[in-house]
Amino acid sequence: MISLENLRTACLDLPLGDAAAADAVRRRQGALTKPPGSLGRLEQLVAWLACWQGRMMPRLDRVEIVVFAGNHGVTARGVSPYPAAVTQQMVANFEAGGAAINRLAALGGARLRVVPLTLDRPTLDFTEAPAMDEAAFLAAIETGVATVSPGLDLLCLGEMGIGNTTVAAALCAGLLGGDGARWAGRGAGVDDRGLARKIDTVDAGLRRHRAMLADPLQVARTLGGHELAAILGAVLAARRHHVPVLLDGFVCTAAAAPLARLAPGSLDHAVLAHVSAEAGHRALAAALGLEPLLDLDLRLGEASGAALAIPLLRAALACHSGMATFAEAGVADRN
Amino acid sequence: MISLENLRTACLDLPLGDAAAADAVRRRQGALTKPPGSLGRLEQLVAWLACWQGRMMPRLDRVEIVVFAGNHGVTARGVSPYPAAVTQQMVANFEAGGAAINRLAALGGARLRVVPLTLDRPTLDFTEAPAMDEAAFLAAIETGVATVSPGLDLLCLGEMGIGNTTVAAALCAGLLGGDGARWAGRGAGVDDRGLARKIDTVDAGLRRHRAMLADPLQVARTLGGHELAAILGAVLAARRHHVPVLLDGFVCTAAAAPLARLAPGSLDHAVLAHVSAEAGHRALAAALGLEPLLDLDLRLGEASGAALAIPLLRAALACHSGMATFAEAGVADRN
Repeated sequence: MISLENLRTACLDLPLGDAAAADAVRRRQGALTKPPGSLGRLEQLVAWLACWQGRMMPRLDRVEIVVFAGNHGVTARGVSPYPAAVTQQMVANFEAGGAAINRLAALGGARLRVVPLTLDRPTLDFTEAPAMDEAAFLAAIETGVATVSPGLDLLCLGEMGIGNTTVAAALCAGLLGGDGARWAGRGAGVDDRGLARKIDTVDAGLRRHRAMLADPLQVARTLGGHELAAILGAVLAARRHHVPVLLDGFVCTAAAAPLARLAPGSLDHAVLAHVSAEAGHRALAAALGLEPLLDLDLRLGEASGAALAIPLLRAALACHSGMATFAEAGVADRN
Repeated sequence: MISLENLRTACLDLPLGDAAAADAVRRRQGALTKPPGSLGRLEQLVAWLACWQGRMMPRLDRVEIVVFAGNHGVTARGVSPYPAAVTQQMVANFEAGGAAINRLAALGGARLRVVPLTLDRPTLDFTEAPAMDEAAFLAAIETGVATVSPGLDLLCLGEMGIGNTTVAAALCAGLLGGDGARWAGRGAGVDDRGLARKIDTVDAGLRRHRAMLADPLQVARTLGGHELAAILGAVLAARRHHVPVLLDGFVCTAAAAPLARLAPGSLDHAVLAHVSAEAGHRALAAALGLEPLLDLDLRLGEASGAALAIPLLRAALACHSGMATFAEAGVADRN
C-alpha cells in the first residue's frame, strides 16, 4: 500500500511527452493534399497522440474504456432521483451489454472494462465525516493505478455512481473555490427541491472540511468518492505509461482535477472528450484549460462522451496516415 | 430541362416528415436505461432520422457522400492561394483515393461519389456578368437533383472548387445582407492582401447584381457557382425522396441557403454537421437556425465535416436500437 506522501511525490514527478514525434506529425501534415491546418483540431489530435505514444505514426489498436463505479453516503440526503441500488444494477447492465456504453464501445472498437469499487461499502456522508479515511482513499487510487495496462494506445475513463454529481460539485468547489450554487447541477435530473438539497449538501461539506481545502489530495479524500479516486489513479498511471487519455464528463473531469491543482501540465496527456450539459462542467473545463472535442448536451456519464470521441481520433489518424502528399498526388501546392 | 419557375414551385412545395415516427423514437428513448434526455443531441438525431426516413427504427445502411466540384471565374482576381487547376487535380486525387474525404468516407461506412461540373467551363466572373446564365444554372441544379438516389438512408453533401469561399461569401451577402467584409474569410489560407481582394470582389458582385438580390434563386444564379447550384438541387431532391441530409461547411451551407430564404422549414430534413473555422460560417448557421454537431476548426470542405459526423449518427442509432430498457435490465427507474 502506498502512502499519501508517496502518492503526492508521484503526482509531482511526471514524465514528459515526445516533442520530436509531435513535430514529425506536424511536418507530415503540412505535405498532405489539403490547405495547411485545414483539418483543424484533427491535426492537433494526431500530434497529441504521437507525443504521448512516442511514435510519429500513432496507433489506435489497443483502446480501452474503463468505467469505475462507486457508491456515496450523500445519497441518503436525497441528492439523486434514483435510489443508490441503481449503481449496482447499472454495473450488472454494463456486464450484460445493455447500457449506452456497451453500444458506444463496440462502435469505437474499444474494449470495455467495468470496475466496481466496494459498492456495498459507500463512502461516508461528507457533511458528517471525511468521505474516505486514508486507507480507503489510497486503496481506491491503487485500484485505478492497477487498471491501466502499459502498452495501451488510448484509455477512455468514465464512471457510474448514483449521487456522484454532488460529489463532483463538492470537489470543484473545494479545489477551485465557489460554493454549491456555483457547481451543483441537475445531474440525472433532480427537480428544484433536489437541486437545493445538492447545493446545501455541498456547502455543508465545504464547511466541515474547510481545513483540508488547501491540499488537493485531501479534498479528493474528504469530499470525493471511490470511483473518482480510482480515476485519479488511472490518469496518473496512464501518464507514467505514456498512454493518452480521453476524459469523459463532469464527474470524470472533477476526479482528475486534483492532479491539475498539484502541478501544471499534469493533464497534458489527457484530452477532454466532451463538455457535458451538467451545469458546472464548462466552468471546470475552462478552469483546467481543457478544450472539449464534443458539445452535444450529453449528461449520462459512464464514459459515453469519451467513447463517442474515439471515432474522431480514428478519423484524425486515418487522414494522417492514409492521405496522399501534394507530390504523390500531382496536385499543385500554394502559389 | 426544367424552367426557373418550375424550380421555384418545387422549392415551395416540400413534403413534411413523419411526426409519428419521431414520437415513437422519443417514447422508446424514455424507457432506455439512462436518465431521460441524458444522451442529449444523440436522442434528437434519432428522432430526426426517423422523421425523414419515415421509420421508428431508422437505418444507416445506405449512406452516400457526394462531392460536387466546380470552377469559378473570380479565381482570376487572386482570391485563392491555389491555382484554379487544383480543382481538377483534387478531383483526380478523390478518384485515386488520396484525399481526406476518401479516408473519412471509409471510416464512416459511406459510399463516396465525386461529381465534377464542367470544370473546363468555369462560371463567369460575377463582378462582370452573372456567374451563370439560366441554362447553365438549371443544368447544374438538375445534375444535383439527378445525383440523389431514392432509398438512401443518409446523404452527406460537400464541394471542391478553388475560389468558392468567395462565391459563398457573395451568396451570403446577397441573401442575408451585409457586405464582403462581413462574410469573406481566409478560405484555403489567403494573406491579408488576398482577403482584401476577396472582400472587394464580393462587394463588386453585390453592386453589379443589386437588382437580383430580392430573389434567392437569382442570387444563386448570378453570384453562385455550378457546384453550389448542384448542392441546392441535391438538397431539394433529398427532401422529395425523404432522405435526411448532412450539410458540410461554409460553402455547402451557403449553397443550401437560398432554399431556406424561399420557404421556412426547407432545411428541416438537413442537419449541419459542423461549424467551420471559415469566418462567415457561424453567422450563416445562426441566420438559418442550424445548430452544428461538431466544432473542430475544420476548413477543408470536400464533405469532410459531414463525413466526420456520420459516426455520431451511427452512435445515436446504436444506443437507440441496442440499449436495454429499465424493465429488461431490472434497473430501478426514478423515485
